[in-house]
Amino acid sequence: HPEVTLACLTCRQEAGQPFEAIYPGMASWIGQTCETYDPASLVGAGVEVAFTALPHKLPMSLVPGLLDHGIKVVDLSADFRFKVAADYEAAYQAHSCAGLLGEAVYGLSEVYTDQIKNARLVGNPGCYPTSILMPLIPLLKAGLIAPQGIIADAKSGVSGAGRSATATTHFCHVNESFKAYKVAGHRHTPEMEAVLAEQAGQPVPLIFVPHLVPMTRGMQSTLYAVPTAGASEEAIGDCLADYYSGCAFVRLRGQQPPDTLHVKGTNCIDIAWKIDPRQGRLILMSAIDNLVKGAAGQAVQNMNLMLGLDETAGLRSVPFPF
Amino acid sequence: HPEVTLACLTCRQEAGQPFEAIYPGMASWIGQTCETYDPASLVGAGVEVAFTALPHKLPMSLVPGLLDHGIKVVDLSADFRFKVAADYEAAYQAHSCAGLLGEAVYGLSEVYTDQIKNARLVGNPGCYPTSILMPLIPLLKAGLIAPQGIIADAKSGVSGAGRSATATTHFCHVNESFKAYKVAGHRHTPEMEAVLAEQAGQPVPLIFVPHLVPMTRGMQSTLYAVPTAGASEEAIGDCLADYYSGCAFVRLRGQQPPDTLHVKGTNCIDIAWKIDPRQGRLILMSAIDNLVKGAAGQAVQNMNLMLGLDETAGLRSVPFPF
Amino acid sequence: HPEVTLACLTCRQEAGQPFEAIYPGMASWIGQTCETYDPASLVGAGVEVAFTALPHKLPMSLVPGLLDHGIKVVDLSADFRFKVAADYEAAYQAHSCAGLLGEAVYGLSEVYTDQIKNARLVGNPGCYPTSILMPLIPLLKAGLIAPQGIIADAKSGVSGAGRSATATTHFCHVNESFKAYKVAGHRHTPEMEAVLAEQAGQPVPLIFVPHLVPMTRGMQSTLYAVPTAGASEEAIGDCLADYYSGCAFVRLRGQQPPDTLHVKGTNCIDIAWKIDPRQGRLILMSAIDNLVKGAAGQAVQNMNLMLGLDETAGLRSVPFPF
Amino acid sequence: HPEVTLACLTCRQEAGQPFEAIYPGMASWIGQTCETYDPASLVGAGVEVAFTALPHKLPMSLVPGLLDHGIKVVDLSADFRFKVAADYEAAYQAHSCAGLLGEAVYGLSEVYTDQIKNARLVGNPGCYPTSILMPLIPLLKAGLIAPQGIIADAKSGVSGAGRSATATTHFCHVNESFKAYKVAGHRHTPEMEAVLAEQAGQPVPLIFVPHLVPMTRGMQSTLYAVPTAGASEEAIGDCLADYYSGCAFVRLRGQQPPDTLHVKGTNCIDIAWKIDPRQGRLILMSAIDNLVKGAAGQAVQNMNLMLGLDETAGLRSVPFPF
Repeated sequence: HPEVTLACLTCRQEAGQPFEAIYPGMASWIGQTCETYDPASLVGAGVEVAFTALPHKLPMSLVPGLLDHGIKVVDLSADFRFKVAADYEAAYQAHSCAGLLGEAVYGLSEVYTDQIKNARLVGNPGCYPTSILMPLIPLLKAGLIAPQGIIADAKSGVSGAGRSATATTHFCHVNESFKAYKVAGHRHTPEMEAVLAEQAGQPVPLIFVPHLVPMTRGMQSTLYAVPTAGASEEAIGDCLADYYSGCAFVRLRGQQPPDTLHVKGTNCIDIAWKIDPRQGRLILMSAIDNLVKGAAGQAVQNMNLMLGLDETAGLRSVPFPF
Repeated sequence: HPEVTLACLTCRQEAGQPFEAIYPGMASWIGQTCETYDPASLVGAGVEVAFTALPHKLPMSLVPGLLDHGIKVVDLSADFRFKVAADYEAAYQAHSCAGLLGEAVYGLSEVYTDQIKNARLVGNPGCYPTSILMPLIPLLKAGLIAPQGIIADAKSGVSGAGRSATATTHFCHVNESFKAYKVAGHRHTPEMEAVLAEQAGQPVPLIFVPHLVPMTRGMQSTLYAVPTAGASEEAIGDCLADYYSGCAFVRLRGQQPPDTLHVKGTNCIDIAWKIDPRQGRLILMSAIDNLVKGAAGQAVQNMNLMLGLDETAGLRSVPFPF
Repeated sequence: HPEVTLACLTCRQEAGQPFEAIYPGMASWIGQTCETYDPASLVGAGVEVAFTALPHKLPMSLVPGLLDHGIKVVDLSADFRFKVAADYEAAYQAHSCAGLLGEAVYGLSEVYTDQIKNARLVGNPGCYPTSILMPLIPLLKAGLIAPQGIIADAKSGVSGAGRSATATTHFCHVNESFKAYKVAGHRHTPEMEAVLAEQAGQPVPLIFVPHLVPMTRGMQSTLYAVPTAGASEEAIGDCLADYYSGCAFVRLRGQQPPDTLHVKGTNCIDIAWKIDPRQGRLILMSAIDNLVKGAAGQAVQNMNLMLGLDETAGLRSVPFPF
Repeated sequence: HPEVTLACLTCRQEAGQPFEAIYPGMASWIGQTCETYDPASLVGAGVEVAFTALPHKLPMSLVPGLLDHGIKVVDLSADFRFKVAADYEAAYQAHSCAGLLGEAVYGLSEVYTDQIKNARLVGNPGCYPTSILMPLIPLLKAGLIAPQGIIADAKSGVSGAGRSATATTHFCHVNESFKAYKVAGHRHTPEMEAVLAEQAGQPVPLIFVPHLVPMTRGMQSTLYAVPTAGASEEAIGDCLADYYSGCAFVRLRGQQPPDTLHVKGTNCIDIAWKIDPRQGRLILMSAIDNLVKGAAGQAVQNMNLMLGLDETAGLRSVPFPF
């Protein structure tokens, strides 16, 4: 990133280790050693923005202190993604600083751009919500699709399951395996429905089935929606082009299905759409890199917005053709 | 196979080559050399059943000759999967022996069992139809799901794309790539709709989106349907258990999503079902090995039925735990 | 297996669980529930042979009891692979029943065939030793290669690392990763050197470097040795053909490099050899499925020998062409 | 690249197509359309450096024209990697502009740095030579290893086989496959031996066996050499550290085996070394990304040297932790 310096890295389990001992590939890029978290030392180091990448429930105990010290926060957990504490509490557990929910901005960069620019606290979206909400929001707002009966059939690479070594992430269980999981019961569903309802001005119930793909990175979502009268492929393309006009990271692919390989390593979302010529159903497809636009990349994009920097700073990395 | 001998192998492009030169792994299992196709020599060799595994349009010129020589045929192309020539011709091209379509039996072994037992000619289903039709047929027949609005979001390993080396099958294009293809335009759609209509006694329009998964084998389908009044998870489970009672290759998994890894190398289809507790939509899932139950395995199962052998003969291979 | 019945399955950690709950793919093949180990109940169940598949050190406390009850044992750990207790103890830890080492037979089926037929106790070899010893032993015995300076550069699929979920086996660490490990320090080295010395009648020091390949199954070894005067490619081929004459699971591939894909799912070892035309060094290559010929398959082969059954019984599974 | 503009892209087979139609991931990074090659238009466009990435034999007909127009050339084929035409011709075919071989500089950036800075024409090394030569050259020059008996057991990802779709690159043939190929007969052997002889001042015969790994990118080489008297691990580490002092892309890993995953997407080479404590043999290991340090990245590094730019310009991309 051309305008930002990494002041410090903190870690609960691996404090005291050089970062490159954990990620040897990072040797000669990141020289820091992981430290024990200490907000006072962050202030002393002149930190302006903190990224809190922790399991939900932990950030709510740290974030108020950071804000009190004048440090802006991009939180990558679910703790600050909800406006209504009860929605959060139904999906997770009790919220200890619900008072901040009103102030926190949902970090879907292209949708909440202006609020993010003025935010002290951003709740960075999960990878599934990013890939599913971005195609739907413009069409719901424009009334081009019905808010009922939307189905999201989404597929994620294994890095979405986190760093922990579990039976689920064992190479021999993942390789040559494709399956659904948490069918109609994934915690991202209420997060998505809350945002869709806010954007559409009415409830938007979602049927959401996530699947696990034997690859490291990448997320593809296929969405099924009922177009309203007159919502042609052309009208849908115009609506998306209009809404995402000037957005460097949104690539509209027409009727060409997006491929996770083409967004790998980038902060891009590729979106395509097609109306089934026989049944009239609209099929929307999107592809992102779940670790970039679906996580760390969008977090940096949000920091850029919060600090008044060029939105693409630090995010212009070239995709992997392979 | 304990009761069948491989009389001869024919091949258009590789005639004259030992089979093990093409598939070195088969050395010491199959010693034959690929021959040029010659129906007379098949008769001389005492062939009772022929498997025709050719691109569509070619089988229709060979199959009548085989039948005339008293050889039963399991055809793995689309040529004998349709009852109505016009349906075939809309999806493929003109049919030169449409007269055989009335006699040909659709080789979905567990559904058309009795007809297959008496057939001279079986049109073996494609892999997508097998994985999609088997969960739907019992529920449609029992009136537990509405025939309208069914969505099939299906995912296939790369071996489904055939042996040809193309840009699509290049390792570097497939690895870390997940994408939809032939969205709402795949030729298997009319094949499936014709079978569903026959079984349901009314039209069953299908929205079908296939996807390519970076793995060699395996096919998983997630199906979305509207349950009719009173169609609980229990009723659905009972209906499937009843319909597939005694079927050695159908494993009902309850609400546990099936995994392609668990059927790899076997002729099994694993089926699960779940009703979205919030939206009421039924989600059906199936997993098969596209090269076994989705192709060659079901072809052998059909041969067993046609010859009056044990349906599982030659198909009891143990799955790969990995 | 046509002549053997699985009497019972025991498990330390998962006792009480149906086997198919652990390996869902095995549903309808293996109906047993995992039991707590109890030698008396094995006797009651009429068990003739036990496979002990445990971490080293545990089998030595169980095996004497099994033998006392008249149960033959194929042990898959290192505990009974060494003739000399000191060799074992240098690589592992103290041996509590070293008295059995003289009786135990090293389970390299094609090499120790006659001893295995008469054994009560077989120490089944590791996967690396199987893939490395089988090409070398005939040539060392025939004096066609020098016993000094042999290098074994071996590569293993991830299943060789076991079922435990660790950072090493996490999909995201393995995928697109290739690396050496335990360089010149792997515990299989003394096991191999002991067998080679016994066979060659003199010390055979080995330089052994294992590597991890991003695939589930398969092991390939490339061996570098100095041929003695007159040891042509033809002489080497003749020697191997002679030694392994009549061995159903050994396939000699001439100068064609063996491919792990071609042995996948089978008990075969494929062996090839080539003399570098410029440097005169002999390059031997072998491929096995590390879970079959490298572990469970060879264990069954040894049981067949111990019980006087056909050596290939239960092991005739067809390879996966893909 | 901060100081270089892409003037034009030429292509034989896909002239007229937008580059992003061939590599859709590049949309919004590279807007150019592929043109038919025309040296005059390159001059008109003010081109200073041309990268010729063509099969061998083609560049020799184009490069003289480029040089005549004052355009510097980095050639990625074998055509300008040899000093002696006869060596090239023994491995490839007749050379039509052997007169340029004396002037051409071998583009191993850290080894021929000064000559590259003054070169008009650089013959960019292949991926195998880069990964094998860089660990060996400092040790040979310092007399720490014997020039005889060196073995290079190297492993490459599939992208090393090029873009063509062949049976070899079909996903289903590569996945779960590991094998050697071109055993002791690969064309990179004479290229490496010529460079090693020049550097060592005496012949350095090489035994070279390449292998194919089921992954897209990455190359790992394990090298076996006989250390000379007194060549301890410490002396070897010092020698490498000394030789590559100040080299941004060389990371010395001590005895920690390098992993292709840790260099993926970067221009780094990671090198490790270990002396077998029992046999005394030196084991060297290296890892590169075959498409970056092994091809395009080193080509850019060479351009930077030729133009007097910062050697790392355009090459600071962060590695993929996964």
